[in-house]
Amino acid sequence: MPETTDPAVHVLLPWNGLDERHGPWPSNVRVHVWDGHTPEDELPADALESTGLWVMPYAVPGAERLLPRLPAVRAVQSLSAGVEKLLPVMPEGAKLYNGRGLHDASTAEHALGLILAAQRDLPRWVADQQAGRWEPHFTRSLAGSRVAVIGYGSIGEALERRLLACEAEVVRVARRSRPEEDVHPVTALPDLLPEVDIVVLVLPETPATSGMFGADELAALPDGALVVNVGRGRTLETGALLEEVRRGRLRAALDVTDPEPLPGDHPLRGQPGVLITPHVAGGSATFRPRAERLVVEQVRRYAAGEPLVNAFPRP
Amino acid sequence: MPETTDPAVHVLLPWNGLDERHGPWPSNVRVHVWDGHTPEDELPADALESTGLWVMPYAVPGAERLLPRLPAVRAVQSLSAGVEKLLPVMPEGAKLYNGRGLHDASTAEHALGLILAAQRDLPRWVADQQAGRWEPHFTRSLAGSRVAVIGYGSIGEALERRLLACEAEVVRVARRSRPEEDVHPVTALPDLLPEVDIVVLVLPETPATSGMFGADELAALPDGALVVNVGRGRTLETGALLEEVRRGRLRAALDVTDPEPLPGDHPLRGQPGVLITPHVAGGSATFRPRAERLVVEQVRRYAAGEPLVNAFPRP
Repeated sequence: MPETTDPAVHVLLPWNGLDERHGPWPSNVRVHVWDGHTPEDELPADALESTGLWVMPYAVPGAERLLPRLPAVRAVQSLSAGVEKLLPVMPEGAKLYNGRGLHDASTAEHALGLILAAQRDLPRWVADQQAGRWEPHFTRSLAGSRVAVIGYGSIGEALERRLLACEAEVVRVARRSRPEEDVHPVTALPDLLPEVDIVVLVLPETPATSGMFGADELAALPDGALVVNVGRGRTLETGALLEEVRRGRLRAALDVTDPEPLPGDHPLRGQPGVLITPHVAGGSATFRPRAERLVVEQVRRYAAGEPLVNAFPRP
Repeated sequence: MPETTDPAVHVLLPWNGLDERHGPWPSNVRVHVWDGHTPEDELPADALESTGLWVMPYAVPGAERLLPRLPAVRAVQSLSAGVEKLLPVMPEGAKLYNGRGLHDASTAEHALGLILAAQRDLPRWVADQQAGRWEPHFTRSLAGSRVAVIGYGSIGEALERRLLACEAEVVRVARRSRPEEDVHPVTALPDLLPEVDIVVLVLPETPATSGMFGADELAALPDGALVVNVGRGRTLETGALLEEVRRGRLRAALDVTDPEPLPGDHPLRGQPGVLITPHVAGGSATFRPRAERLVVEQVRRYAAGEPLVNAFPRP
């Protein structure tokens, strides 16, 4: 029998059941599933040989090891926003797509939670609850505060909506000035920082942002200011921050750190006025329905031969 | 010399310096200050004898003991919203004014902080920070959740604005139906509760609300639901809640408790899934400027012989 071209489109997804929740797949689609944890050798041979669109498991370190075993792959969908590290390992002829927008609500929500926890002394109340204490005191508030959002993009917009509803004032900052959106350039930070109560870093890690927020920027903040980082750990100089929080001059709420993971005995952990979460801003329940809608749309487009959305880098 | 009527209006305030921040007092006003902590015997005799308007120190238990020593008092301004307990001790001929509205932003903000802390597992991260762990996991989110606000009034409105910005859905509930505002009556709770992820109690304590949220209401909530109380502790049945959280079926975030203060060895304190703060929702920095604006306005009105705002009960 002569070899025939398989008319089916093979896609490899991290989850089962999307058709049950979102309606049937296009008729030419064959779905395989790999969650990133089961051994890849258990995948059926046609899944490995035929997968054209691979949706990578989310937040599974090392999942990219499957790439060399997917000879037919043409499209790789990551569900992360930051995919710089995948570019060098992409196979010839395959395009990369990222999870732009999927994490905006989750990340903005966690940033808001960190800010409120810090302003309203939640770590203190958690300790008091366990220690059997009931010792109320007045706290700071978010309402009436001025918040600089540094790296103002789609997450920053989502955060800004939440902050405004909380009666805070927002100062937008990005690397480049965008006067039509009232976005200040980072070069204006020396003038802006002395006037803010809270600064939130939402920066990706690039050569330009690495160490961008260091001793000078921290020194420009007023006493008692709160430094929040939900972007990438290396954009904030850990040593300089540690010095300020040790003196009790600044406070910090960090979802990302440098180094990351933060070692168990790292001095930042024990500082009063420092709240740390283990890079969980993007990973909440609200991510899943958004990610599923993107995956279903990408499969539909791939099966129909249409261009996929969220190409990286942006075309 | 014949006795003359003192043309001055004497007011007793809990803070100094309002004139520095808000402009000079009317010329006929004499200001005395009592913070509720210094012994009242140290107050000058004319302060005690002549005070016509008394602004009570905020959140100082027992401050009302001064009332019998103020023979000329005609207006008593509390900075609390709940002043039921002052009515029986009000002197003949004096009117009571409350702090309606002063706490809306602070209380709504703290309710939001409790919700975010519970949904995003902040107590767990606080413990992990201290224990040296870095073990991220997916959490619940607020975005995409349905939140019932029970006791929908001015604090509920302030909370709703924040919840909507966080991409949550809000179900408004009050004792009486207000169809024109889409407010459901509490009698609809059996139908509403099975469909909500989060319920927030913002109820005052009255005979009608005492124990209002009990075993039946808790049982109607779906598995994993979060019960938040920023109103008054007795509106929620502690025993029934304890049973649900012990089984791990419900979670709770409470700023008010019954009993209050919550004893150091109370079993609620140690339950996983329970977050407790010591009645601090209203007491944050954003209260102070709002309270000062009210006090300045009341003094101006009192000195001018105009009716004061925030009479209690509402006229």
